[in-house]
Amino acid sequence: MVSAELKLKTLSIMLPSMPMPLGAYEMTVQAGNLLFLTGMLPLKGREPQFIGKLGKELNAKEGREAARMAALNALAVARKHLGSLDKIKRIVRTSFFLAVSNDFIDHPNVADGASELFRDVFGADRLSVRSVVGVMSLPLNTPVEIEVTFEVTL
Amino acid sequence: MVSAELKLKTLSIMLPSMPMPLGAYEMTVQAGNLLFLTGMLPLKGREPQFIGKLGKELNAKEGREAARMAALNALAVARKHLGSLDKIKRIVRTSFFLAVSNDFIDHPNVADGASELFRDVFGADRLSVRSVVGVMSLPLNTPVEIEVTFEVTL
Amino acid sequence: MVSAELKLKTLSIMLPSMPMPLGAYEMTVQAGNLLFLTGMLPLKGREPQFIGKLGKELNAKEGREAARMAALNALAVARKHLGSLDKIKRIVRTSFFLAVSNDFIDHPNVADGASELFRDVFGADRLSVRSVVGVMSLPLNTPVEIEVTFEVTL
Repeated sequence: MVSAELKLKTLSIMLPSMPMPLGAYEMTVQAGNLLFLTGMLPLKGREPQFIGKLGKELNAKEGREAARMAALNALAVARKHLGSLDKIKRIVRTSFFLAVSNDFIDHPNVADGASELFRDVFGADRLSVRSVVGVMSLPLNTPVEIEVTFEVTL
Repeated sequence: MVSAELKLKTLSIMLPSMPMPLGAYEMTVQAGNLLFLTGMLPLKGREPQFIGKLGKELNAKEGREAARMAALNALAVARKHLGSLDKIKRIVRTSFFLAVSNDFIDHPNVADGASELFRDVFGADRLSVRSVVGVMSLPLNTPVEIEVTFEVTL
Repeated sequence: MVSAELKLKTLSIMLPSMPMPLGAYEMTVQAGNLLFLTGMLPLKGREPQFIGKLGKELNAKEGREAARMAALNALAVARKHLGSLDKIKRIVRTSFFLAVSNDFIDHPNVADGASELFRDVFGADRLSVRSVVGVMSLPLNTPVEIEVTFEVTL
């Protein structure tokens, strides 16, 4: 099994600092060997780095970057909880919510902005399941929210 | 660990009677120590107590009350399954779906109507992870649906 | 416990061939005794069989058929992973995302197109929990996406 921490170094990827909660909730909860994460947004701290809807203010390329930023936040949050990403056995589940205009149709491409990062870090033999949904709006008017569940070693 | 049942009494919170299914599904399924709940709406029995979309027919304050009512239904359903809320180790995950108008932006505030109830009942050291999404519409034209997963003692 | 494989034969239900991924993800991930599935669409292979939104291009009856097709895909994917549906202890959780027009109100009826199939195959004593949400749009402009989690025997 490839080391995710080593892979991050090889890819010269620096994880961002932790995003901050916007209400009465935690960023992570572990139950047994499942680690559940709060829905990740493309924030730095509490500040959104992408604003608007896909197909309106933002195009698919920007959506991919926003998805990647949310995925990096997920990794930062997981590392903070676990100490090291190498305690992640695999990514189990990723649920993507994309804030979209009525006629946006490029959902899988945007989600791949995050899924391809996860593939690069954890390897193609540890891909997750995925759902992708186009919604009306997301907190702070961001374009992408990702719910991630990890399986971790105890 | 604080007793959730005692806390309910201290706060003079009476749980409502069980909401009724609207189709071919159960209100609860337990798998190991995870207790999964059907998406909770602001119903009494099968009757919606809040109708409409946030930012249109309903404002954020009403949305908070609707979220709190859905959360109380979640507790009623969990108690029915478990016998006592004191068998809940913690709330693991809460997913909020808010039916919103196009320009509604107060998602985290509405979700806190439920999250703050859970914090008051289970304590600030047992907060859940959370995702919040603004959607087009919900069953029975209600403004809030909450999916809750609990970790329970076996 | 009724045999789901036998029940499929009795009901003369043939499962479709596997749907194909649209990006960097897997169709199934098992963690312990939980089997998580990618969001299922009403596809054959990669080809959508229903296009459009409920309440606009499609009515509730077509929505029920689309939901049933997505549910059959879920069974095909689960059988591929497990070898036999008889390794399923029960369906734990089903999350329905319905692409809807602004005034569509028949969400539970559409979801029952899938829930009733699951009831017929696994029996009324093994129903799942359920959430149903009306959203803006789904991948490939399909009207229904279902996220399914199974509890399986190890």
